[in-house]
Amino acid sequence: MSLLVALVAVLPVAAQTPASHTLMPVPTSVSLAPTQLRIDSGFAVTIARYRDARLERAVARAVVRLESRVGVPMSRRIGSERSATLVVDVAGPGFPVPDLAEDESYQLDVSASQATLTAPTVVGAIRGLETFLQLQDSDARGIFIQGASIKDAPRFRWRGLLLDVSRHFEPVDVIKRLLDGMAMVKLNVFHWHLSDDQGFRVESRLYPLLQGLGSDSLYYTQAQIREIVAYATDRGIRVMPEFDVPGHSSAWFVGYPQLTAGSGPFTIARTWGTFQPTMDPTRETTYQFLDAFIGEISKLFPDKYWHIGGDEVDPKQWNSTAHIQAYMKAHGLADAVALHTAFNKRLFGIVQKHGKTPVGWDEIFKPDLPTSAVIQSWRSSTALAASAKAGFRGILSAPYYIDHMKAASDFYLPDPIPAGTDLTAEQQAFVLGGEACMWSEYVVTETLASRIWPRLATIAERFWSPQNVVDVTDMYRRLDVTSRRLSEFGLRHEEHIARNARRLAGDSTALFEMLLDYVRPKDFGGSGSTQLFPHTRLIDAAIPDPRASWDIVGRARRAAAGDATAATQLRADFARMASVQPRLTAVRESIPAANDGLQVAGAMANLSRIGLGALDFIGRRAVPDAAWRTDADSVLAGLAPRRIGQWLLVPTATDAVRTLVDAAKGLSPVRP
Amino acid sequence: MSLLVALVAVLPVAAQTPASHTLMPVPTSVSLAPTQLRIDSGFAVTIARYRDARLERAVARAVVRLESRVGVPMSRRIGSERSATLVVDVAGPGFPVPDLAEDESYQLDVSASQATLTAPTVVGAIRGLETFLQLQDSDARGIFIQGASIKDAPRFRWRGLLLDVSRHFEPVDVIKRLLDGMAMVKLNVFHWHLSDDQGFRVESRLYPLLQGLGSDSLYYTQAQIREIVAYATDRGIRVMPEFDVPGHSSAWFVGYPQLTAGSGPFTIARTWGTFQPTMDPTRETTYQFLDAFIGEISKLFPDKYWHIGGDEVDPKQWNSTAHIQAYMKAHGLADAVALHTAFNKRLFGIVQKHGKTPVGWDEIFKPDLPTSAVIQSWRSSTALAASAKAGFRGILSAPYYIDHMKAASDFYLPDPIPAGTDLTAEQQAFVLGGEACMWSEYVVTETLASRIWPRLATIAERFWSPQNVVDVTDMYRRLDVTSRRLSEFGLRHEEHIARNARRLAGDSTALFEMLLDYVRPKDFGGSGSTQLFPHTRLIDAAIPDPRASWDIVGRARRAAAGDATAATQLRADFARMASVQPRLTAVRESIPAANDGLQVAGAMANLSRIGLGALDFIGRRAVPDAAWRTDADSVLAGLAPRRIGQWLLVPTATDAVRTLVDAAKGLSPVRP
Repeated sequence: MSLLVALVAVLPVAAQTPASHTLMPVPTSVSLAPTQLRIDSGFAVTIARYRDARLERAVARAVVRLESRVGVPMSRRIGSERSATLVVDVAGPGFPVPDLAEDESYQLDVSASQATLTAPTVVGAIRGLETFLQLQDSDARGIFIQGASIKDAPRFRWRGLLLDVSRHFEPVDVIKRLLDGMAMVKLNVFHWHLSDDQGFRVESRLYPLLQGLGSDSLYYTQAQIREIVAYATDRGIRVMPEFDVPGHSSAWFVGYPQLTAGSGPFTIARTWGTFQPTMDPTRETTYQFLDAFIGEISKLFPDKYWHIGGDEVDPKQWNSTAHIQAYMKAHGLADAVALHTAFNKRLFGIVQKHGKTPVGWDEIFKPDLPTSAVIQSWRSSTALAASAKAGFRGILSAPYYIDHMKAASDFYLPDPIPAGTDLTAEQQAFVLGGEACMWSEYVVTETLASRIWPRLATIAERFWSPQNVVDVTDMYRRLDVTSRRLSEFGLRHEEHIARNARRLAGDSTALFEMLLDYVRPKDFGGSGSTQLFPHTRLIDAAIPDPRASWDIVGRARRAAAGDATAATQLRADFARMASVQPRLTAVRESIPAANDGLQVAGAMANLSRIGLGALDFIGRRAVPDAAWRTDADSVLAGLAPRRIGQWLLVPTATDAVRTLVDAAKGLSPVRP
Repeated sequence: MSLLVALVAVLPVAAQTPASHTLMPVPTSVSLAPTQLRIDSGFAVTIARYRDARLERAVARAVVRLESRVGVPMSRRIGSERSATLVVDVAGPGFPVPDLAEDESYQLDVSASQATLTAPTVVGAIRGLETFLQLQDSDARGIFIQGASIKDAPRFRWRGLLLDVSRHFEPVDVIKRLLDGMAMVKLNVFHWHLSDDQGFRVESRLYPLLQGLGSDSLYYTQAQIREIVAYATDRGIRVMPEFDVPGHSSAWFVGYPQLTAGSGPFTIARTWGTFQPTMDPTRETTYQFLDAFIGEISKLFPDKYWHIGGDEVDPKQWNSTAHIQAYMKAHGLADAVALHTAFNKRLFGIVQKHGKTPVGWDEIFKPDLPTSAVIQSWRSSTALAASAKAGFRGILSAPYYIDHMKAASDFYLPDPIPAGTDLTAEQQAFVLGGEACMWSEYVVTETLASRIWPRLATIAERFWSPQNVVDVTDMYRRLDVTSRRLSEFGLRHEEHIARNARRLAGDSTALFEMLLDYVRPKDFGGSGSTQLFPHTRLIDAAIPDPRASWDIVGRARRAAAGDATAATQLRADFARMASVQPRLTAVRESIPAANDGLQVAGAMANLSRIGLGALDFIGRRAVPDAAWRTDADSVLAGLAPRRIGQWLLVPTATDAVRTLVDAAKGLSPVRP
């Protein structure tokens, strides 16, 4: 008996099995354990079985990241002893270049004494290392890895992000930070939109006027492209280039006007939309040019897919050019759409000749195209389903345009294969996955991270995790931690509001931070925007889904159901929101940005008033009077998109207040 | 009469002449006017008289920065009309490469309708453009440039920053941001410490093992060096390389052990201090190597000066090597110092043969050296004065080691030619200026900006502004604005505390921000530090002179003199300081960094208690009792540097509390 007491005394306090984890994306199966693997300067890592330089670099990066969290140096040596803290056990190399057919699965077991990561491929191990790092937590004794047993594999094998570097260029380091973040949330395709009307961003040595006249000297050298491809390869990320043709291609024609039927000279487009200059599909020289160009540039990109664009072809130029009309007549092409398809068929042949599989936007989908092509749906999941039914493989982008300033939850729930799909299992297999799209009309280097992160993590989870992972509240809980983790790479999204509030408002920084807690930028920001527009106004300081706004919708739902705690929290939110207008008014004499804020501050005050009123009725279970109902309806109607005109910002609380108003309106008179 | 009324009615409200400006460094003469030059999208700039590409680029950069502040696009065209908003009127090119003899003066006149910047040289105009941008302010009507008439020229013509990239490497983009900031505060020498025991950072094609084995692959290619030199040249900044010999040179010997008398193999040093491996000054091959090396590398650096280092030569190896001892005897060299001087004479000849003037640290100064050399004093202004008396030109660095974690005010007041100097006017002319030194043992890319900015701006002002500009309170007032302006370039110093508090403390971010408001990092941070040490602990999150600490010393001085407002403010400071300890204790179970904070939090609470007690005695004019005096003395004695041992942080309020305690102790009993 006394022996037992002594034993208990020296045992450490038993760790509890935590109720939840902060992994993002959620793995296929997770079982947490009441153990903790302590991490300190004695941490050692080994690679068992297969090892190569890529795996060693991946393991070394994980050690450095862990070391940074512990704050003391660790051994950089990667041994092969089975007794190490972390054993990475990989069966073989997998594809040396990331491939659509890659097996990305892994298994991770963490006990109190050791973690074992098992994977069939190097990329599987790379995915598992991210999960290992996400299991890190801390307590008074320091850093530990939560005990767990995890089996994991992606639901979709194409999980991408498109970045448009034509409308606004991004330097190499920004791309690398983006790839770091993508790897953290297990995305595996970097879709690089490299040309458009507003800029041609790649160095061609065969056709140097492409970048020479079409880029304002903002382009990637071939060495830089190789550097980025290598960086992505190290992280298990494919790099698929897009050179959008035959439309969206004004920038090509600045240097090579002979590619188009229109009369030049041509200039780089500085505004947004579609433009008339279009490639001439009737000339052999056009195909000779594309053949040579693709032959040159495809050598820089080892990925097996080549994106030809193909969206939004303006038919005006084709329809108004005599020799094109004659060609169409001679070849029995009824209209511009038919001509576009004929062009695509020729282009597909060229792309395939250079060893690549073509990918294109919705518009290229025509039943008589070869089904080897992959269709990227920017229009709708219905369009994707249609091409799947026709036997085409496809990826979904329509719901994932993260240049749109929507909340993370808006991106989280849409599914590449929605519940209730009418696709057969065989047809569903044609849906390879999806891609988030970051079009860059209104984004510059200084704002890019704040527009992508952390929202992209929720889309990454949709593409990776089981279909039934749809709890928005839990998503936001994990997103909070994930967002902080992403800062580890130097991504600046978390600092965006504070940095810009200080820049715009100086001594009134706190007021502007409060304002920016409850607003988001309006989509398609500001009239008169061009490529040369400075992005330094209040709309650029705002972020699409501010942390302070995350909880309001949930609180409103709970308060509407009578939860008093949620109501109290909401009253504090509304008081803060309402305080912004008078305070902004007080500083407008010295801070010009206050005027942009005052566009929306009145609406925030009105929403606060209505919200507080609704909470009051709900709390008292009192039926709202007609005057209040009219006021509430008027405030909410005033926030309809068509009503807010030239505002740069919109309040984030509108939906929450609507929930409360609906709840208040639904109250029945309390029986006496 | 009615006409007069009407006229008055349409006149804009007369602008007031502001009482003060926010220019940093303060110009030679400033006269503010009650006018405002409004800046909007109609802003136009012209270059009158002389123009060249460098001037055009400088003007274009200024326009883009102004445009960013206004938030609307402006014309990028640089015309030549005399009616433009800003007329830049330059007499001639000056030196095409920034030169010690450059005339950097300018004159700037801003009226309600036009600004005119006149300068004898392009660099003078570059300096004036920074002043123009610093005159920008805003009100309810938008952005304006304050009316002013300014004449300006630097007090010293050598105003530098040394950056050590050997102990820790910094990438090209970081160097560019540093040059941006330097140009903003009118510094004109980037002293690039490119080799030391811990790394050789330049690509040599003649001796590729220098960087091949001596850099961990962290070095600048020759193309990158040219890129940085061009970037600096565009901003009127000289780039002076330093290759420290014959000591501090272990990294050379990894690839070329034959340069030293010691026996190899040699490795890159990972720890700090001085190391025994030293160049062998007795072999002709050493000089042949240095001749070829300097011949190659000097072509990359157009600056006329070449820094040979020469500091901290450890004599052990020379004294213990037979052939070196024999050589010394044969040549009548009495000791290692004499041998070092003989080495320097040979080296000077090589440097001069390649068209450069040698610069070296204090230790090279010997009366029989050629006086063409420039002496950089890292030891004291007395040492600088001694070499000036011997006819050597010199630059002062001793008081400007910004790797030391002192307050901005500590760097602000020391003068290269202190008041009361015994140097004659002729000898004073030998003092060319000074250099701040950023040694990098304890700094990495993530922390660099927070260690340099904004404190460097105060040193820049010392080097540029008239000697009588010494008002510390006014310096801090302008530094606050200057710090914010420096963020314009993407420098991250202002976000440092918040970013790291969030990284270390998650939900307790506000608590850690409060802690970091009242502490600074201890110099020479943390035992066991090596080149591979992660810099992610609380000491790395702290900054040397936090904004919240700026005011405490001044408030204490005023409160000690009986100022009740200052006392009230201080009581709030002390309450915040004292609240940190219990709150850190409460979270130490989940946040390991709390333990580092608790090292200092007790001292903060004690300082608060003593400070509040002293304020109480002062407020009541009551003489402190003996027990309180003992307590106060004990608390202050406990904060002596030798007492705080392994702490990572020290409180910033110690001096302020000492001021209060002294004032309380000095109270006389109030007569009844």
